[in-house]
Amino acid sequence: MPDLPNNPAAQAADVLAAIRARHPLVHCLTNGVVKNFTANALLALGAAPAMVEHPEEAALFAGFADALLINPGTLATWEVAPIEAAAPAAAKADKPWVLDPVAVGPLPVRTRLARALLEHKPTLIRGNASEIIALAGQEGKGRGVDSGDAAEAAIEAARSLARRTGGAVLVTGPVDYATDGGDAIGIANGHILLTRVTGVGCAQGAVAAACAAVAPSPLIAAVAAALIMGIAGDVAAEHAASPGSFAVALLDALDMMAPDTLTMRARIQ
Amino acid sequence: MPDLPNNPAAQAADVLAAIRARHPLVHCLTNGVVKNFTANALLALGAAPAMVEHPEEAALFAGFADALLINPGTLATWEVAPIEAAAPAAAKADKPWVLDPVAVGPLPVRTRLARALLEHKPTLIRGNASEIIALAGQEGKGRGVDSGDAAEAAIEAARSLARRTGGAVLVTGPVDYATDGGDAIGIANGHILLTRVTGVGCAQGAVAAACAAVAPSPLIAAVAAALIMGIAGDVAAEHAASPGSFAVALLDALDMMAPDTLTMRARIQ
Amino acid sequence: MPDLPNNPAAQAADVLAAIRARHPLVHCLTNGVVKNFTANALLALGAAPAMVEHPEEAALFAGFADALLINPGTLATWEVAPIEAAAPAAAKADKPWVLDPVAVGPLPVRTRLARALLEHKPTLIRGNASEIIALAGQEGKGRGVDSGDAAEAAIEAARSLARRTGGAVLVTGPVDYATDGGDAIGIANGHILLTRVTGVGCAQGAVAAACAAVAPSPLIAAVAAALIMGIAGDVAAEHAASPGSFAVALLDALDMMAPDTLTMRARIQ
Repeated sequence: MPDLPNNPAAQAADVLAAIRARHPLVHCLTNGVVKNFTANALLALGAAPAMVEHPEEAALFAGFADALLINPGTLATWEVAPIEAAAPAAAKADKPWVLDPVAVGPLPVRTRLARALLEHKPTLIRGNASEIIALAGQEGKGRGVDSGDAAEAAIEAARSLARRTGGAVLVTGPVDYATDGGDAIGIANGHILLTRVTGVGCAQGAVAAACAAVAPSPLIAAVAAALIMGIAGDVAAEHAASPGSFAVALLDALDMMAPDTLTMRARIQ
Repeated sequence: MPDLPNNPAAQAADVLAAIRARHPLVHCLTNGVVKNFTANALLALGAAPAMVEHPEEAALFAGFADALLINPGTLATWEVAPIEAAAPAAAKADKPWVLDPVAVGPLPVRTRLARALLEHKPTLIRGNASEIIALAGQEGKGRGVDSGDAAEAAIEAARSLARRTGGAVLVTGPVDYATDGGDAIGIANGHILLTRVTGVGCAQGAVAAACAAVAPSPLIAAVAAALIMGIAGDVAAEHAASPGSFAVALLDALDMMAPDTLTMRARIQ
Repeated sequence: MPDLPNNPAAQAADVLAAIRARHPLVHCLTNGVVKNFTANALLALGAAPAMVEHPEEAALFAGFADALLINPGTLATWEVAPIEAAAPAAAKADKPWVLDPVAVGPLPVRTRLARALLEHKPTLIRGNASEIIALAGQEGKGRGVDSGDAAEAAIEAARSLARRTGGAVLVTGPVDYATDGGDAIGIANGHILLTRVTGVGCAQGAVAAACAAVAPSPLIAAVAAALIMGIAGDVAAEHAASPGSFAVALLDALDMMAPDTLTMRARIQ
């Protein structure tokens, strides 16, 4: 079982600096609700988004890109083929990839798909407690995209998933938990307004992929993704009190975030 | 023929309060242009959006959700199957559902589809005059998504549709008209900038579904949806003069809208 | 070889005035990342957007609309059929149409598709240097949606494409170049923040289609599209310093742009 990393916030700050220096190209196979916001979040942060959805091109592009995100949030019938083509292609090309198992549990097609994708060993899995519990094969309380379970209830499922994949798992909630199979790191940043803008969680999955492209380990990528989106939310909430203006302020906060800010504002448990 | 309700604005205010208390989960099968804005409008208002587009999952989810919206605005080939699966599933589960017949009339595939969906008795139909006239089987003047007919010209078609479905119809325009087959209620709120932001009308269809999930009748849901979006537009126009900042202010106005505001600002005829 | 037009900025200003007077209806078959922003950019400018994606309806609608945009940015499998239906329908109906060959070059399916579409003689082609070079059948350096080549390196490919189609080509970059086969006109407006918001380039393709619907020539449409988006970026950057608020300010700038502003702020070489 791995030891906890030293000073994860400082390592997350280095991840942010590396994104700014290297502009990782993140291939996003994500749902139709959040494509625009996801691309804007990546651009604001300093990464480069691309959404290539033809199965033939998606498999090829998984080799060009620096990381891949798979998010079956809408899972229209046509979305299955590019996902099934890109995940093994990324794995084969040794590119980090992130699985965001949106609404896995109550919905059967995506549940089967997400569980089958575990075979390709996602570098990082990001989901709420219900999704992580369901992905691990346990019974959860999810209703659509909202979690019916507390994040703490999913820590064991997360550790078990991480041991199966050899990667890391980020369970999101009022406190987020990152684990690579050992003790979980709690990250208590974030603001309630983050739950009032669609696609913040989905965009965090793409940010996690950008982090994974440059991080020293999947666990540090998970911590960095939690800190980046949580602290951006903390900062945005200082400038906006309603969801419309908060979403704008959130993108601005991703743009203006200095690596030092991660170290100074991190609330790690 | 039903009597007109007493004090529809006060009843609409109760609908808004119920949305805030119950957070109805609205399943949206809507077009690719407006998914993000629709989800954000629902979240800002206090409802919960979900877009589940695989036919098998969409049918199942229509039973989980509190209401369903069907909007064939883009109607890519793959969009037909989830629509055809979800509408009867919602009807069978006795869940309210809203049909927004975007561009029905000049475009034949969606016109056939929308007319066939009437069999499943939509709780509420929301459209501009040309769309309502065409859906009722009459000749309109629509050109794409814009109405070529005045809202008043569609009142008879709206009453006829409402009698066929047993639900309500909301005809949108400079003055909106809501009817459940009897006399129409006119709602004169709204601002011209609402027509300069894409997806406002489509988002109103989703808001109507949220209203229908908690309203005492389809007619009150229609009035509430007209008042909520119209008054949010009135408020937003006090803060923004151009469409980019107006769209942001509109979401903020949905978030900050007090039920009392509906009663105080309603312009009902 | 055509002569360069007299005072292209004044002619572009007339194009903007004509868009405001005639509200051209632009049929957009574009990628799922940018549909919302594209529609909002057209509405802010004074044009009317519509996205009709069923192949049967798309072919019909290409005859109703005033111009067509084709952008295979995501190119899901289902996107091919409406594109292949609409391009010849627009050409047959003598409607101007714009091809935006996103990521043509490294990705084979869209490269074959875009080259085949040249047969239908796009009125205007808009792309970055790598895309224009690849579309013309030469070797480029593109990686996904970003250009690996300087705009200047694509001028010869652009002239060659324009001669083949009889239309105009706009090569975008720090300086944009418009050509109809003769000398290229350089347009040096624009701000680096335009590259930090997703869909600005794609929206410019739609703006180019709106311009082509009312312009005296494809070349003037290309110059107008470059000036409109470049100057909107210049103006927006005076009001916003980060991408979230910049995107909002950009839409506001499109709304508030006076035709005279084009003449006064144009930086034409």
